[in-house]
Amino acid sequence: MTTNFFAPPSAIRGRRVVLPENESRHVCSVLRAREGDEITVVDGEGGWYRVEIAHASPEQVVGTILDTHRDRGEPDVHATVGVGLLTKRSRFETFVEKAVELGVRRVVPLQTAHTETDSIRPDRLRNVMIAAVKQCRRSRLPILAEPTSVATIVDETTAGSRFICHGGADASPILRVLDETERTKEVLVLVGPEGGFTPEEVTTARDAGCRPVSLGRRRLRAETAGIVALNAVLLQSQSESRE
Amino acid sequence: MTTNFFAPPSAIRGRRVVLPENESRHVCSVLRAREGDEITVVDGEGGWYRVEIAHASPEQVVGTILDTHRDRGEPDVHATVGVGLLTKRSRFETFVEKAVELGVRRVVPLQTAHTETDSIRPDRLRNVMIAAVKQCRRSRLPILAEPTSVATIVDETTAGSRFICHGGADASPILRVLDETERTKEVLVLVGPEGGFTPEEVTTARDAGCRPVSLGRRRLRAETAGIVALNAVLLQSQSESRE
Repeated sequence: MTTNFFAPPSAIRGRRVVLPENESRHVCSVLRAREGDEITVVDGEGGWYRVEIAHASPEQVVGTILDTHRDRGEPDVHATVGVGLLTKRSRFETFVEKAVELGVRRVVPLQTAHTETDSIRPDRLRNVMIAAVKQCRRSRLPILAEPTSVATIVDETTAGSRFICHGGADASPILRVLDETERTKEVLVLVGPEGGFTPEEVTTARDAGCRPVSLGRRRLRAETAGIVALNAVLLQSQSESRE
Repeated sequence: MTTNFFAPPSAIRGRRVVLPENESRHVCSVLRAREGDEITVVDGEGGWYRVEIAHASPEQVVGTILDTHRDRGEPDVHATVGVGLLTKRSRFETFVEKAVELGVRRVVPLQTAHTETDSIRPDRLRNVMIAAVKQCRRSRLPILAEPTSVATIVDETTAGSRFICHGGADASPILRVLDETERTKEVLVLVGPEGGFTPEEVTTARDAGCRPVSLGRRRLRAETAGIVALNAVLLQSQSESRE
C-alpha cells in the first residue's frame, strides 16, 4: 500500500475499525481495495494498525485489526517549533507539511512584533497535516496550537532544552550547541518571522533558558529556518538512536 | 537594504556596475533608491560588492563599487545534490529554492527508473535560483545541471565524499555517517525520486563509493529528503567552521 489511512480513535472499537467517509472513498476508488485486502490505519494518537478489510464500499470501509503498534514512525524526541506567522500563507503551509514529515510534535504559530498577520487557517492546516501524516507513515498527528506570543510560549513550555534562532553575535552553530546540550525528551525551538525577533523578544526567550543558535551564513526565509532548525534537532536525535 | 541585487560579471567593469533592466526597475520602483544610496550587488560567481548609486533610472542603474568581497555568504563545503525528477514541478521548485538558501553548489535533476518525467523548465528554475540567491544574500548562483542518470553523475563527479539516501537495512543515520567520514571540500548526495532508487541504481552508486545513509523513520517526499540530506551536510560543515 502506498499510504496509511487515518481514523480517529473514536472510529476504533476493540478489533473493529470504521474508516471515515473520505478515507473510505480513497480506499475504494483510488486504491480499488477489496474485502480481504490489508491496509494500514493510524489514529493520530500513536495507534498504528494493520487492518484486513471486512467490508468495502465508498461510503464506509470496515476492517478487522490484525496487528497493533504504538508510535510507529515517531521520533524519540518531542519537538515543539514556534515559528513566526508568515504573511504568505502558502509558505506557512509548506513549513507545516515539511515539519510533519520531519517529525514535529507541536507547531506554535508565533505572534511577534514583526509579524504582519495574526491569523491562520486551522482547518486547512489540519488537512495539510493529516495528508502529511498519512504520506510519511507516522502514527501521531502533531498538535497545531493557537497563535501565541514569545512570552507565553516560553512561560508555558515544559521542554528541558530550549533554543532561539537568531543572527546575533552571541549565537553558535545549532549543531554545535545541540552537541553541548544535555539530551532531553522535550525540545523547544523558536524561529522568528520575516524581519526577525526584536531584542526584547530575544531577551524574554533567553531569560527563560533559550540558548541562541545560528543557522549559517545565509539569511533564510522563516519557513526555511523552521525546517532547518527542526531538522537539526531530529537528525541529532536519530543519529543517537538505534534507527 | 532588504535584498541583494544581481548583475552578471559582464555588467561589472573596474569599479563601475551597470544593473540589468529588471534589477534597475526593482531598485527604483520598489526600493525607491536614489543617487548616493548604497546597495549590495552580487555577480553570481562569488563577487560581492557594496555599491553607491551614481545614476538611477528604472531603465538603468549605474553604481560605483566601494567595497569588494569574495564568496561572502557561501558555505565552506561544495555540495552537489542529485535529486530524482518530480512529477509535480512545483515541488521540484520548492526543493530548488530551499537548496539555494541552504547553500547548495550544484543541483542535478536525476533521471531514474522510477522517474515519471524527464524534463525541467530551466528558465523558470533559474529565476527561482536568482531570487533565492538575492534573498538569502549569497554571492554564488548554483549550477543547474542537465537531467542525467545515476551512472553518469557518479562517473563524472570529483567529490571526495559521496552518499546515497535510501531506506535499506545497510543504511546508517546520515549525521552518524557524516561524523565518521573524513572531511572533504566537495560532497555529493543522491536522493531518489518518489518510489526510490532501484537496487541496480543503489549498486551503481555504491560501486562508485557512495555510502548509504538513512534520513529517519518517516518516509519523506523526494523534495523533503533532498532538503534534509543537504541540510545535514551543511549543518555539519557549519558546526566545524568558525561561523
